[in-house]
Amino acid sequence: MTRRGARRRAAADRASAPRRARYGALTNTLARQRAFSEERLEAIHDSALRVLEELGIRVLHDDARRRFARAGAAVDEDTRMVRVDRGLVEQTIESAPSEFALSGSAPDSQVVLGGDHVAFVSVGGPPHVSDLDRGKRPGTLEDSRNITRLSEHFDVIHLQSPNVEPQDTPVATRHLLVTESQLTLSRKPPFIFSRGSGQVRDAFTMMRIARGLDEEQFLDTPCCYTVINTNSPRQLDVPMCQGIVDFAEAGQVCVITPFTLAGAMAPVTMPGALVLQHAEALAGVALAQIVRAGAPVVYGSFTSNVDMRSGAPAFGTPEFVQAAFGAGQLARRIGLPWRGSAATASNAPDEQSVYEFAMSAWGSILGGVNMMIHAAGWLEGGLTASLEKYILDVELLQNFAEIFRPLDCSEPELAFEAIASVEPGGHFFGCEHTMARYREAFYEPFVSDWSNFGVWTESGAKTATQRANGIWKRILAEFEPPPMDEAVRDALEDFVARRTAEGGAPPG
Amino acid sequence: MTRRGARRRAAADRASAPRRARYGALTNTLARQRAFSEERLEAIHDSALRVLEELGIRVLHDDARRRFARAGAAVDEDTRMVRVDRGLVEQTIESAPSEFALSGSAPDSQVVLGGDHVAFVSVGGPPHVSDLDRGKRPGTLEDSRNITRLSEHFDVIHLQSPNVEPQDTPVATRHLLVTESQLTLSRKPPFIFSRGSGQVRDAFTMMRIARGLDEEQFLDTPCCYTVINTNSPRQLDVPMCQGIVDFAEAGQVCVITPFTLAGAMAPVTMPGALVLQHAEALAGVALAQIVRAGAPVVYGSFTSNVDMRSGAPAFGTPEFVQAAFGAGQLARRIGLPWRGSAATASNAPDEQSVYEFAMSAWGSILGGVNMMIHAAGWLEGGLTASLEKYILDVELLQNFAEIFRPLDCSEPELAFEAIASVEPGGHFFGCEHTMARYREAFYEPFVSDWSNFGVWTESGAKTATQRANGIWKRILAEFEPPPMDEAVRDALEDFVARRTAEGGAPPG
Repeated sequence: MTRRGARRRAAADRASAPRRARYGALTNTLARQRAFSEERLEAIHDSALRVLEELGIRVLHDDARRRFARAGAAVDEDTRMVRVDRGLVEQTIESAPSEFALSGSAPDSQVVLGGDHVAFVSVGGPPHVSDLDRGKRPGTLEDSRNITRLSEHFDVIHLQSPNVEPQDTPVATRHLLVTESQLTLSRKPPFIFSRGSGQVRDAFTMMRIARGLDEEQFLDTPCCYTVINTNSPRQLDVPMCQGIVDFAEAGQVCVITPFTLAGAMAPVTMPGALVLQHAEALAGVALAQIVRAGAPVVYGSFTSNVDMRSGAPAFGTPEFVQAAFGAGQLARRIGLPWRGSAATASNAPDEQSVYEFAMSAWGSILGGVNMMIHAAGWLEGGLTASLEKYILDVELLQNFAEIFRPLDCSEPELAFEAIASVEPGGHFFGCEHTMARYREAFYEPFVSDWSNFGVWTESGAKTATQRANGIWKRILAEFEPPPMDEAVRDALEDFVARRTAEGGAPPG
Repeated sequence: MTRRGARRRAAADRASAPRRARYGALTNTLARQRAFSEERLEAIHDSALRVLEELGIRVLHDDARRRFARAGAAVDEDTRMVRVDRGLVEQTIESAPSEFALSGSAPDSQVVLGGDHVAFVSVGGPPHVSDLDRGKRPGTLEDSRNITRLSEHFDVIHLQSPNVEPQDTPVATRHLLVTESQLTLSRKPPFIFSRGSGQVRDAFTMMRIARGLDEEQFLDTPCCYTVINTNSPRQLDVPMCQGIVDFAEAGQVCVITPFTLAGAMAPVTMPGALVLQHAEALAGVALAQIVRAGAPVVYGSFTSNVDMRSGAPAFGTPEFVQAAFGAGQLARRIGLPWRGSAATASNAPDEQSVYEFAMSAWGSILGGVNMMIHAAGWLEGGLTASLEKYILDVELLQNFAEIFRPLDCSEPELAFEAIASVEPGGHFFGCEHTMARYREAFYEPFVSDWSNFGVWTESGAKTATQRANGIWKRILAEFEPPPMDEAVRDALEDFVARRTAEGGAPPG
């Protein structure tokens, strides 16, 4: 076969039988990077324990303080300061599971957190959404549903997320609509905001309806998660504590993430910021385990630095990368799954957004992240969800998934016979070894354009972000929700209708 | 001090005393990633040795074949095939230095290659240049000089490079003009094209003039380098062999880089492509060491894959990253400095160019690269040098340099006292610990814009690439060449004038 012939044949076969990407359950095979020696890691862990037992943490939630006190912590009701001795901290670390699974609606949408497993989670929480056509604008329910659809479409996204805040819906019923979207448009485990026990109770009821679980089964089946951010430094407020209590009691997953920006809410040194992060995360983990020993919790970190000129948060910085290496060590030190982020401060889905994302993501992955949040579509320090950025990020996530795949190094793959069969100065396009493998040989990107300058120019000289615009539109246009039992769908609809009629539940 | 006050003071002090970045000599402190087990690494090494001794390599250069024969290789003059047994290969690997220094014109422009040292080298070789104002166009001498200026300006760029081909100069005198530019505009070790002995001889004479070396001193002072690409598969052509002979004889640095694109000039499997790369690189290293035992050589790799639909080369792919991990292992296996690349196939300095660059660069760095070529300004698979891309890439290189810096984890940096001094829910802006450190605490990017959306919009809503446009212009406008002895400058000018009058030297 000629070179041209081989190419044509390859192209034709490819079109009919593209490589099937399967990124549903990923294992990080890369070596972990370390920021600290074992001895300095112990010093950081020890300093965090000292913070908790000597300085304490302010807990604004009465019931949480009572629970801490009953477990043996020293509580000062006047200052609301809680001091937790290292014995109690070690005991709660001990009872927290190092690895657990979150169920989705199908066996292949189960997500394991911990060990070498990696789950990617898309953008969470921005009030705004943006795309190239309509610019930046307040998020709507339809925007939220669209990002839910994208997160269902890509199997490299493993969990649903609070994607964008649907500001066109009333706050008292928003949780019903968002949870309904996540459960009807996706097979993946949903995110639930912990905004007061009333809303959480509603969402848990919807989880039981959707997954066919009775109350008892639900308590033993992690199938949804929330994120709790501490008020750094050293403070747990009322909604946070309530969220930890609600999720731990229900055996659902609580991701406890201090928001420790070095130089602002945390010490200006990265080791110091990690000491504070570690102390606050340990306090949250302790509360969850006091509520229910064995409750599934994730050790979260969001340590980055600020711009010392303006106080603005920065992401994807060298300091962020080093903090991620260190946070991963701390999570392994205490034997918990670790949550990191792929964050950027860029205002546009431009080159800065990509290099900050790449730095954050590599830092998290090399740090051994188990749950990488904000891994698709995060922009502007979390104020905007960008649809084009979502697509760009997924391209990179798929790259990481491919890098995790160990190379097959068996003798035939070393290709000695193939090398012998090709003349010096020749080529391997048509050789047997190539023909037997080319269909599955390489990752095929869906954003990258590898055509030559002439072809690229003729087709509009589009940047990657401009191409991404067409991609998300095509995916949304073709999206079909996963199959769902009629009766279950009806039951969900009925519940939402009833609770809406009752006025929903106020955020708390 | 109030938060606002602290910010203002920080901003004011910063303006007067910015953090001094010093990236002149970098050490890669990160853990190396591996693509292969030790046993499979040996299998690849062994397969490459089998390729050389059983299949051989075609050597088109008569003198090189004679040298191989005299050293004990089996040479077939009819087919021009050279078979090198493993004993000879091992012996030549043995004589090649594992680490050596390249001198510049000042002590602080010396570059060490090998070990944990990392040198970054900007774009090399494109025929075209591009910027946002003038688009893509053939390179000129002034473009080449401008990139030489940028490479002098940034201390994170360690060596000069063949940046862009100055097509407005005659081929017989081009080498004189380019070498003169590199020697007069920069203190860093220059690149010299091996395009025939006549040109190389001229350039070496200019090196001796510029560095004040006599013929004998020059032979023992590596101070310039070239890159030799093999004609994969299994062929060394005449100019390549001549280049290896010329540089090895003069004790100057030869970077031997097979151009093994999996699926095209190399087997479709990455392990197979690396077997071929390894065999070809070993053949080049052997020739250099046969010419002069101890000649400084760098083990080069450029293994990537092609788009199997079109045959177009692809860069920054997952396969590229895995090949980089493997190539680094192979280089360490034979104890030679390793050259990698930070390549992209993108046609524009857009988001694709950044994510492909980030993937290539992380792959190379985690592979343990000692010399990362095309690390600033490479675009379009090497067909264009982009000035904006240059600036974007340098921002990332400086990020890597910062990540290499070990964190100070001494007790004061753990900040226990600072944490104790800040109230729960407070902030660290004005505290003593912050005030003593904020000036030097964090890397300050020069491309990234961390202002809020409003400020960013008011200042023109520029993308990072648009900002990069202003940055390279400012640097070039303010550039001052490094001081140079009048007499040396005159001697270089005289030499160029004389050789130009004599017609220069034809490329060979």
